[in-house]
Amino acid sequence: MRERDLIDRYLKPLATHPAARGLIDDAAVISPALGRDLVLTHDVIACGVHYLPTCPPSDVAWKLVAVNLSDLAAKGAKPTGVLMGLGLSAVEDEAWIAAFTDGLARVLAAYDCPLLGGDTVTGLGQAVLGLTAIGAVEPGQGLSRVGARPGDNLYVTGTIGDAGLGLAIARGAAAPDKYLLNRYRRPTPRLAVGQRLAGLASAAMDVSDGLLIDADRLARASGLAVTIDLALVPVSEAALLRVRADDVGRLALASAGDDYELLFAAPPSAEAALLTICEEARVRLTCVGHVAAGAGLTVIGQAGAPIEPGRLGYEHES
Amino acid sequence: MRERDLIDRYLKPLATHPAARGLIDDAAVISPALGRDLVLTHDVIACGVHYLPTCPPSDVAWKLVAVNLSDLAAKGAKPTGVLMGLGLSAVEDEAWIAAFTDGLARVLAAYDCPLLGGDTVTGLGQAVLGLTAIGAVEPGQGLSRVGARPGDNLYVTGTIGDAGLGLAIARGAAAPDKYLLNRYRRPTPRLAVGQRLAGLASAAMDVSDGLLIDADRLARASGLAVTIDLALVPVSEAALLRVRADDVGRLALASAGDDYELLFAAPPSAEAALLTICEEARVRLTCVGHVAAGAGLTVIGQAGAPIEPGRLGYEHES
Repeated sequence: MRERDLIDRYLKPLATHPAARGLIDDAAVISPALGRDLVLTHDVIACGVHYLPTCPPSDVAWKLVAVNLSDLAAKGAKPTGVLMGLGLSAVEDEAWIAAFTDGLARVLAAYDCPLLGGDTVTGLGQAVLGLTAIGAVEPGQGLSRVGARPGDNLYVTGTIGDAGLGLAIARGAAAPDKYLLNRYRRPTPRLAVGQRLAGLASAAMDVSDGLLIDADRLARASGLAVTIDLALVPVSEAALLRVRADDVGRLALASAGDDYELLFAAPPSAEAALLTICEEARVRLTCVGHVAAGAGLTVIGQAGAPIEPGRLGYEHES
Repeated sequence: MRERDLIDRYLKPLATHPAARGLIDDAAVISPALGRDLVLTHDVIACGVHYLPTCPPSDVAWKLVAVNLSDLAAKGAKPTGVLMGLGLSAVEDEAWIAAFTDGLARVLAAYDCPLLGGDTVTGLGQAVLGLTAIGAVEPGQGLSRVGARPGDNLYVTGTIGDAGLGLAIARGAAAPDKYLLNRYRRPTPRLAVGQRLAGLASAAMDVSDGLLIDADRLARASGLAVTIDLALVPVSEAALLRVRADDVGRLALASAGDDYELLFAAPPSAEAALLTICEEARVRLTCVGHVAAGAGLTVIGQAGAPIEPGRLGYEHES
């Protein structure tokens, strides 16, 4: 299929927002809301690296959008739109493209986020999909990893470690479980919670490479020490059926990637407001530790004493 | 090299703009100039598809940025910043990365355009590089392909066809020529001219796939007919040494891609102002044809009569 036909048949119907100019032009034009800051993020996922060739195309689209919107959520931003770089190989035939763009339409509709433009490239050795997400925040209210204060509690949304188990299932290395597989393939960006954290949280990020490694990054960015109590880490019932209920099992969950939950620091005085926000968003909120003066990550085991966590999470090697 | 080390060693030194937050965060935050529209564009280039594996890494960086800034130029926008998706294979070793990021720093400095953020991915089968460029325009002043009027002249900046000859040289299919090779590998986005076209040009785009095919696209987008006079198409001295001075030779130049010159329609009354703008920007300006009611592209040969142009330019096939 020619790139032009691909765009006309599958992408133009998605680009209904006036800023996209029907994809006739080489660029989108938006009028930013007056007095808002813009948050910009760009993530790339590649077949065989970030998703398996067996992943359903609609779930590839979901993940591509969700991981980028998760970055917006961590900044407290409301999505303005996305631009997509769609790089395809000979493996992605027209049926794949039809299913992918169908999934793309669904995830964009789910988060009320228009497709503004992008580029399509064919003839690659593997699919490489890039997405730029743009969001809006009140000036000076955008959250970041920097800013945690000694005495803050450390919170996470949802449950931790499901996606790591889902990846094992997707690889055929573990028995099927629809919930866990879905948590890996179709993560939920916590936009509704993120947009209400301004003024309450002192620092925030999303958990993408593992709770422990990402908490360590937040602590480093804020120049503080962080302690995580393994016994407090929220775990789903489905995950509890898969891992041992000891420190080893909980460490495995807390160092698995792809959760896309929010991790943030906030003073204890904010807890009541935070619980209300999460209740209204129907998202679980858990205090998993705290922030203090100093440096480094301490993990407290279920016996109440510090333990050596080993590998903290997923670090990308070249 | 770990992705984190690559970012720390080679990309962080480039991300000096406060909006980039030192690449510590997963997103950039910008405060758009009050009352300006934002132009957003995203282009992808891949090794073996859009550039040859033998291309110097600094020129790959130049081209990646220049092709995107050329889209901003065609909209009359001033660059605000870029986000980069850097997808690398095992072929791009540390020396390649060092040379690439050195070239990236140079092209961004040349156009006063900060690196705001992005993503780095390793382990791909080939390098795939995506760039999102953000620019600012006065509200309602952003140019597009739509809007040409019957009676408008059709103008191009610079010279046409050099890059096509440069590609043949890069492939080893033609004798070396530094000027032509450079025109292919290091195109010049016409930002200074583009930013002054508002109020003068009725429609604009950049010439990326060939003058004839892009003029045809402009005509279709505007719902008009366009005529190009081959004898008027501006050709460099270096190109004239390579092609026959007849219609066949000129058609080859006018249907070659990668020029990244501006193509725009404007009423004859604007010509004096346009000539002044291009003189001040030290860019050649040439009227190559005109726009009229109707549909389709007509090419006038050097004998003064319409000729059959054959292939109009580069169309990407999958």
